[in-house]
Amino acid sequence: MTGTPARPYEDGPAPFTADDYAARMRRAAETAAEAGLDGLLIAPGPDLVWLTGYRPVETERLTLLVLQAGHDPVLVVPTLEAPDVAEAVGAPALTLRDWTDGQDPYETAGSLLGSTGRYGISDNAWALHLLGLRERLPDTEHTALTRALPMLRAVKDGAELDRLAAAGAAVDAAYEEIQKVAFGGRREREVAADLADLLRQFGHEQIDFTIVASGPNGANPHHEASDRVIERGDMVVLDFGGLKHGYGSDTSRTVHVGEPTDEERRVHDLVREAQEAGFQAVRPGAACQDVDRAARAVIADAGFGAYFIHRTGHGIGVTTHEPPYMIEGEEQPLVPGMCFSVEPGIYLPGRFGVRIEDIVTVTEDGGRRLNNTPREMAVVD
Amino acid sequence: MTGTPARPYEDGPAPFTADDYAARMRRAAETAAEAGLDGLLIAPGPDLVWLTGYRPVETERLTLLVLQAGHDPVLVVPTLEAPDVAEAVGAPALTLRDWTDGQDPYETAGSLLGSTGRYGISDNAWALHLLGLRERLPDTEHTALTRALPMLRAVKDGAELDRLAAAGAAVDAAYEEIQKVAFGGRREREVAADLADLLRQFGHEQIDFTIVASGPNGANPHHEASDRVIERGDMVVLDFGGLKHGYGSDTSRTVHVGEPTDEERRVHDLVREAQEAGFQAVRPGAACQDVDRAARAVIADAGFGAYFIHRTGHGIGVTTHEPPYMIEGEEQPLVPGMCFSVEPGIYLPGRFGVRIEDIVTVTEDGGRRLNNTPREMAVVD
Repeated sequence: MTGTPARPYEDGPAPFTADDYAARMRRAAETAAEAGLDGLLIAPGPDLVWLTGYRPVETERLTLLVLQAGHDPVLVVPTLEAPDVAEAVGAPALTLRDWTDGQDPYETAGSLLGSTGRYGISDNAWALHLLGLRERLPDTEHTALTRALPMLRAVKDGAELDRLAAAGAAVDAAYEEIQKVAFGGRREREVAADLADLLRQFGHEQIDFTIVASGPNGANPHHEASDRVIERGDMVVLDFGGLKHGYGSDTSRTVHVGEPTDEERRVHDLVREAQEAGFQAVRPGAACQDVDRAARAVIADAGFGAYFIHRTGHGIGVTTHEPPYMIEGEEQPLVPGMCFSVEPGIYLPGRFGVRIEDIVTVTEDGGRRLNNTPREMAVVD
Repeated sequence: MTGTPARPYEDGPAPFTADDYAARMRRAAETAAEAGLDGLLIAPGPDLVWLTGYRPVETERLTLLVLQAGHDPVLVVPTLEAPDVAEAVGAPALTLRDWTDGQDPYETAGSLLGSTGRYGISDNAWALHLLGLRERLPDTEHTALTRALPMLRAVKDGAELDRLAAAGAAVDAAYEEIQKVAFGGRREREVAADLADLLRQFGHEQIDFTIVASGPNGANPHHEASDRVIERGDMVVLDFGGLKHGYGSDTSRTVHVGEPTDEERRVHDLVREAQEAGFQAVRPGAACQDVDRAARAVIADAGFGAYFIHRTGHGIGVTTHEPPYMIEGEEQPLVPGMCFSVEPGIYLPGRFGVRIEDIVTVTEDGGRRLNNTPREMAVVD
């Protein structure tokens, strides 16, 4: 296999080659074997993108990458879609086993597997397919991939870190620019559209979310953007990200339209302090839950614990939201190269919310932020 | 429960009410019980939209609707997302069981289920969640919903048929208009963008696909739209659809830029004849595979069997692509109210393709097309 010739992005890193994908697949199969698995069953979605560069959507037609140590990677694919596979960068590293409408795809896939094997399967594989495989091979066992091999995609190599840093720099640039637009008197959706434009302008090929949560909407951490007209005196949570060069960005800052009250400033300072504490807890060997605990302690100690109603962070990579999670009970130790958000918040129902978020990568001796805009509360118009 | 007051669409049917959703859920639970199931486990996606009107995306955070005959519907939902549920029309018919980051959602869901129960589960439920439920309740059994209850969403009631007909009329209008734009000398993507604009103009709130496959691209039934410049003398497959009022459209016509050759005309006529034969095979009691066989026989008898490389059709409803499938081996009998595509094609590698597609609904005494534009080959500029 010669790999696809590296064609540099206009302003970015050289694309991954077929050899890069082949190496990832080989490593994944070996890691699975070391963990006592007979192989990995990879569904369309982020696992498949990461391993092959191929981006179909998951449908009722089975597409399944089968990885087994000592065997070449095999992609089970509907005949109809086989031409599309050829366009994926990782295609030269794949052997295709296509099946045609009317054939049993589980027989095709099952013929590649041992009848009593233990397999890791992509979290997002459809139940339809898992049940189809089990019906064909009732004595096989399956474990969700992020439980079986939580570190598989979690630890980023240098080329991946470069992309995540570039995506982080792009959302930082978008944040600097968005402070120049008018907030007061405009609808949340309009500011959200501005954010999306800025993300594209700074090189994102995919926008995943542009949350603009003003005033009481900020108290719902799941709010996106509505027709609410932003008013003078509003706190506004901004949380935005997407993909640049195939890797994710995700940052939050909370701004204020006009001068904040003392209470607003105090709550914002508290979240900033919590975010700093979470960041400071990042080091190799600490557990994911330690990051959550450090951030949460600051907020709880100040009496706002009941208003920090979500986990502190999530992983990021070829998606903007993936394991590992910075959450109580997650004892997974941090490893250099892991990348995740640190994003504590305080949500005061009916009033306002504050969230501050950076992507952080674990280094040999601590953590490094991939978002570096000021975390002080910005006052906007 | 009083239901949400009906607020009519500007140009369409009255929206479904909470009572409508409650009735669907009750019927689904009863149907499951009649089929020997202890209940249904409904994941985010089309099943949940159809049953509740609630449209979250499937993520690693468990959202699961549990339906059991004789019990009120229960929605297991992340606490963070509970406020969004309230905005869904079906919300008044749901009891929420929320779980917070750090709790075990499978314990929450499992506590609602019998330890040896048999459950139907949404096809697109994540393997992560199915495996999580099985770990909690190892003696439960699961069947994919479309296998357990293939008719659950397949048979449309009058209000659904009205919506599908309205969506069909809208894509028909778009097809009439698209014939007026320039094809020759423009890129496929540009024509695809015109199609998307027309779908929106005719009331679609969601565009699912706007395939423009010119010349040799038409020979790949999976082709979408590329930068290829359409040339005079090209056959161009157009296949487009999306959602209007929450229900799907999907039609294909194949046009020609300038006058076609005799061979092109012959192949097009053959596909048209096959599509007519498929349509004529639609009647209550015929099997899904009979529709496929009828269309395929026309093409095979003419010696083009090897070039009709996909099934003849798929269901449509709250999605543009769902069971049942018109395919060899599918013995499911047709029932009045079922709606699906009839879309044979011929694909000549490296040269061109032809596909003609209508949505057809089964009536008491045959079939009725929901797409009614001329199926003769249109000549465009």
